Amino acid sequence: MAVMQAQLSTDLLIAGARDVFETMVFMAVEPATDERRIQGPATQGIVSFIGPIKGCLTVRFSDACAAEVAANMLGLSRPNLLSPEMLDDAVGEIANMVMGTVKTAADMFGAVQISTPSIVHGRRLSHELSGRPNRIDAVVMIDDRYPAELSLLWRERFESA
Amino acid sequence: MAVMQAQLSTDLLIAGARDVFETMVFMAVEPATDERRIQGPATQGIVSFIGPIKGCLTVRFSDACAAEVAANMLGLSRPNLLSPEMLDDAVGEIANMVMGTVKTAADMFGAVQISTPSIVHGRRLSHELSGRPNRIDAVVMIDDRYPAELSLLWRERFESA
Repeated sequence: MAVMQAQLSTDLLIAGARDVFETMVFMAVEPATDERRIQGPATQGIVSFIGPIKGCLTVRFSDACAAEVAANMLGLSRPNLLSPEMLDDAVGEIANMVMGTVKTAADMFGAVQISTPSIVHGRRLSHELSGRPNRIDAVVMIDDRYPAELSLLWRERFESA
Repeated sequence: MAVMQAQLSTDLLIAGARDVFETMVFMAVEPATDERRIQGPATQGIVSFIGPIKGCLTVRFSDACAAEVAANMLGLSRPNLLSPEMLDDAVGEIANMVMGTVKTAADMFGAVQISTPSIVHGRRLSHELSGRPNRIDAVVMIDDRYPAELSLLWRERFESA
């Protein structure tokens, strides 16, 4: 457990998000305080992983942030050119790519399989994993304008279902 | 696709939920019209599956309904004896058990692996899967009092990522 905790860290999660945002979204990611939380309607990408450790990774944006992220990823000049499906696919792909950066650490306990991303829309979102999971939560600022929330929740095989 | 659609049907989803609720929750499940939707804060259980078909199953309740469902499952006399973790675990287990009834049909295309359940809390929740998924949505009434929303979203292997 201690080793796993060291591998799957807040720093790793934030570094993973930063890599994805710098190379695919062209926006800066910096750690933020927990006081900066998302207000209003939000869009959340989720990927689950199955293997020696099981859990999920989530990335959560305000809808305004999600639209700008998706437009940047797709090279669109304006967010209003986005269809709902394009926005969902982009947010799901962000979750998938951040998971890709975390997967190397997770795979040290044996290869994990990653689910197709799914996407939740709503307000006042929070995400849990059944059982008593390990969890890492991080709030980041995107381009100094938008708070975004990252979570990694997991259980190890020897923990009870 | 046509065969898969026939296997994974609204009837199968509702029958799966009915079985779980009758045997584990001791509450009746009946199909309802789409006009009966959840109002206010909601709790949603999610399980993802990975295999020849990939996707997720979600079950969504109002918080009041979720508390009563969880108390019934656990044999508690009052929902206010529930901790947040007990409620989350119960809603996750409902998703897991409904997936169990759907899995037999899903497995006809090759065995799927099921994720640990995760749980979303929020308002005005909706759930999507990245890509252009097949989807089945059903609204049911639980004990003639609570609307609940079930969704099954999936893509087949030959469909683009």
